[in-house]
Amino acid sequence: MAKLMVPVGISSRHVHLTTAHIEQLFGPGHRLTKLKDLSQPGQFACEETVTLIGPKGSLSGVRILGPARKESQVELAATDTFKLGVKPPVRDSGNLAGTPGIELVGTSGRVRLVQGVIIAARHIHMSPMEAAAYGLKDGDRVEVPVPGERGGILDNVRIRVGPHYALDFHLDTDEGNAFGLKNGVRLEVTAARKEWRRAVG
Amino acid sequence: MAKLMVPVGISSRHVHLTTAHIEQLFGPGHRLTKLKDLSQPGQFACEETVTLIGPKGSLSGVRILGPARKESQVELAATDTFKLGVKPPVRDSGNLAGTPGIELVGTSGRVRLVQGVIIAARHIHMSPMEAAAYGLKDGDRVEVPVPGERGGILDNVRIRVGPHYALDFHLDTDEGNAFGLKNGVRLEVTAARKEWRRAVG
Repeated sequence: MAKLMVPVGISSRHVHLTTAHIEQLFGPGHRLTKLKDLSQPGQFACEETVTLIGPKGSLSGVRILGPARKESQVELAATDTFKLGVKPPVRDSGNLAGTPGIELVGTSGRVRLVQGVIIAARHIHMSPMEAAAYGLKDGDRVEVPVPGERGGILDNVRIRVGPHYALDFHLDTDEGNAFGLKNGVRLEVTAARKEWRRAVG
Repeated sequence: MAKLMVPVGISSRHVHLTTAHIEQLFGPGHRLTKLKDLSQPGQFACEETVTLIGPKGSLSGVRILGPARKESQVELAATDTFKLGVKPPVRDSGNLAGTPGIELVGTSGRVRLVQGVIIAARHIHMSPMEAAAYGLKDGDRVEVPVPGERGGILDNVRIRVGPHYALDFHLDTDEGNAFGLKNGVRLEVTAARKEWRRAVG
């Protein structure tokens, strides 16, 4: 198998919103304003931010990512969850059943989500052509070794295949910081290494 | 070799101070007040906290750890460094040459450290007897596999041997959060695994 090299993309805490929630937070008829494009085609960071209010604390200036989605979702690093006092599970984006809610405050109003807070599971986006070339399919899990002083291996990295996905390895800020990684660094994906997996149990 | 199991101890950002800096921050003649003992014998968390002021931001309520040391030292997670706007290296405790400084604010005064800010290198404390039993010596590096959804391997974990050290695997909050670890969880230390080390290069 050819070497699969993936660029690292570190996601800070952020929020996806429904059209209804955008209007509730920023005013009737409001539409998201693009600040810059993200690595995934069609996805963009917005000028709009919200304040998250949890049972123990709040975080201001949390970026909205567009475009609008069918369900609102808040993606946090575990470090953020202690400050806010919420206990979200590690989940794939969009898999929100049974997740905790949180309160969002915008410039024109508030939204109390009943669910939607997650710690995003680390994952690699790729096109069907890339997946086929490397013998991978949507839902597979791979390991990614990281070189350097704070190196090691990231296990249980999900493969997410979609026709509009650009090749990208998405981590949260805790993971990026723990491994000393920067955006754009390229890492090699490896097949499962049964030897150490046995040790892990 | 017998299995070496080590309990995890996750360190939040904290500060060690000289006696002179304690008095400068909290008043002439001030001595640190113990809040609770830490896992390493003789070490304790103090009631005293400081505010750290960096070029880009500040962090309040940062815990002092006692007893007083010969040189003041600030240990941060990488997540904290972005908020403060400082760029400390990953270092062993006490190895402070060439590290950045920061300003500390206490109840009675301020201290501007010219150096002393580090991201602590992950390490395992153990006694000489434990080290001998497992064929390890001070300065060795080992790998620690972590099970679970956010599992993987932590590489380059330093072994630190001292007559008064209790067995403990010290990580910072970024590392603990990235791997989904909690204080007191026991992990198995393994010998270097050359197979994956070759892949890392």
